[in-house]
Amino acid sequence: MQNFDFYNPTRICFGEGQISKLNDLVPQNAKVLILLGGNSARANGTLSEVITALGEREYVEFNGIEPNPTFETLMDAVAEVKAHKIDFLLAVGGGSVIDGTKFVAAAAKYEGDAWDIMTSFGAKVESAMPFGSVLTLPATGSEMNSGSVVTKKSIKAKLPFMSPHVFPQFSVLDPVKTYTLPERQIANGVVDAFVHTTEQYLTYPVDAAIQDRFAEGILLTLIEQGPKALEKPMDYDVRANLMWAATSALNGTIGAGVPQDWATHMIGHELTALHDIDHARTLAIVLPSLLRHTKVAKKEKLLQYAERVWGINSGNDDERIDAAIDKTQDFFEELGIKTRLRDYQLNDTHIDALVEQLNTHGMVALGEHQNIDLVKSREILVGAL
Amino acid sequence: MQNFDFYNPTRICFGEGQISKLNDLVPQNAKVLILLGGNSARANGTLSEVITALGEREYVEFNGIEPNPTFETLMDAVAEVKAHKIDFLLAVGGGSVIDGTKFVAAAAKYEGDAWDIMTSFGAKVESAMPFGSVLTLPATGSEMNSGSVVTKKSIKAKLPFMSPHVFPQFSVLDPVKTYTLPERQIANGVVDAFVHTTEQYLTYPVDAAIQDRFAEGILLTLIEQGPKALEKPMDYDVRANLMWAATSALNGTIGAGVPQDWATHMIGHELTALHDIDHARTLAIVLPSLLRHTKVAKKEKLLQYAERVWGINSGNDDERIDAAIDKTQDFFEELGIKTRLRDYQLNDTHIDALVEQLNTHGMVALGEHQNIDLVKSREILVGAL
Repeated sequence: MQNFDFYNPTRICFGEGQISKLNDLVPQNAKVLILLGGNSARANGTLSEVITALGEREYVEFNGIEPNPTFETLMDAVAEVKAHKIDFLLAVGGGSVIDGTKFVAAAAKYEGDAWDIMTSFGAKVESAMPFGSVLTLPATGSEMNSGSVVTKKSIKAKLPFMSPHVFPQFSVLDPVKTYTLPERQIANGVVDAFVHTTEQYLTYPVDAAIQDRFAEGILLTLIEQGPKALEKPMDYDVRANLMWAATSALNGTIGAGVPQDWATHMIGHELTALHDIDHARTLAIVLPSLLRHTKVAKKEKLLQYAERVWGINSGNDDERIDAAIDKTQDFFEELGIKTRLRDYQLNDTHIDALVEQLNTHGMVALGEHQNIDLVKSREILVGAL
Repeated sequence: MQNFDFYNPTRICFGEGQISKLNDLVPQNAKVLILLGGNSARANGTLSEVITALGEREYVEFNGIEPNPTFETLMDAVAEVKAHKIDFLLAVGGGSVIDGTKFVAAAAKYEGDAWDIMTSFGAKVESAMPFGSVLTLPATGSEMNSGSVVTKKSIKAKLPFMSPHVFPQFSVLDPVKTYTLPERQIANGVVDAFVHTTEQYLTYPVDAAIQDRFAEGILLTLIEQGPKALEKPMDYDVRANLMWAATSALNGTIGAGVPQDWATHMIGHELTALHDIDHARTLAIVLPSLLRHTKVAKKEKLLQYAERVWGINSGNDDERIDAAIDKTQDFFEELGIKTRLRDYQLNDTHIDALVEQLNTHGMVALGEHQNIDLVKSREILVGAL
């Protein structure tokens, strides 16, 4: 096991009816900015439930945080914070709204050009406003971590930042709030959580027994619950398991003390930035090709994955690994998520621009061995055609 | 899944050499009380490593916290805190030292008779001194939770308390510090962590998929690593896995949103209070008998346990359950932990006094269904003769 620091102070209030706890969670005299995405929280009643729970507190709404939250929009929110002397932020939505709120929390306290936060990957963040979240879409894990991804439209750049100052103080997770989500978003969420898990698990062995077992537990749960979540949208326990699986996949638990490989995310970000493909779909495109490309380096963990997650015990090493990767890709397809670039009307003429973007963003040494350079990223993209 | 609140702000610094981080973790101007158990931290060099890491900070040592920390000793430590105007506590030891430090942290701030803390099970704790820990014995999980158990010698009472005010600010976990532990303590630690896990897992199903998988992952890890830890005391990865398994077993992760059954602990506490049997050994005595006694109520989870943890797939329901309980008991015995009261020179003449102690301490409705009354506790003890 590698040495690690683990710290996660976010309070989770999980279950039906937990939104009413906001009255205890938000400081009594806070002036609150409620940050929202599209219209769904308003349409399905979540927003009015939130406002009721806030009681007498003053609040201002900020609408329109995009699925890939943009710097441009978020800076408008920062202006609202200042104009209204807001002292608490409350994200109501999915990972994009929470990611965006993290940026607003940091940017509102930042002196200078707030884009520095992104280009320093968060290193320049020295403080942030307090905030909480009400999660409506299980997927990204942003509700219980200190990471965020923000897109600058003007330069088509989608970049991550992390800072210990942007843990939510609390997150409310009510599975009932996911009943009305479109199938597409549920399927995306399953794939996002699945790939978060593999990125912390499918690297090389460091004898981290607990982390491996927990990662396998999340993958088994997603394989079991994902299809059910599509079939039975109002099954409380299925939605609860999916929601908690997605949070558990990226709250630091399975990533403590193990190597990590975020290459799939980094390559996927460029697909979203240039071609506006849903984040999870970019992961479903990149991961199978990346695993095939790196199957020698990842051999031992892929064999463990084949056995413990997919129950594959027959065939030689290569056959078992290939079968596990095929099963992974089939799982995404069965959720209705296409896994090939051609499914999104992209072909080999689009690869150069994607590789160039990786270069521009410094993504030239990806993977757990920092050896996925631009040549290999190109091969991975070609493998996904 | 049941509704739950999860909150755990303890920072974990895990790995070889992490004690040097104390310089960053302890406030710069703190006056520190270092709380210690027996002589082992001094003898094996851990204490001097701690003192070196504390640099210029003033500190006072408090020695002699017992394996079952006593109210009487801990109140002496509270007096030291006041006499030396201490403002930070640092536990260096195993679960008993950390449990004791939690009590000192709360008692030093408590107005009135500090035993109130125990009789209110922590409800009366309104604040506590800040503290951290350097863990030397993987077992109790106290390094990353807000629970503690304290014994009042004068009345032979061993009681638990919990309070959100007594989370350690940080805990340093260096597996190397466990190399010199006696076999007995390692075996005890494996059993303690194992039973912590079963007490949150072997109840009734509530469709909590992640919590079940994580609990099974901890049990599988303990079964795999426990015997190795005895065979190869200086295998870093084995000790690291054991240490992280024990912490993970009781940091709230597997207990969130599921029923819990702490009857084994509560009955076991009386065995320690009256007969001074090691805590873990009392659990190894009580658990198999308790599982046999409650196997109808726990049927579904016991079948899941048989299959997923012990790989038992043949036989009818009863046979599979019996086999799983037998395997559990055999596992404890193979670690060198005796599992029968007679192994500790106790017989049926000792049962009355144990039951009377349970009554005195209000332990009259134990288990996930609160239906283990004194009659059933007696039967469980008789079953363990």
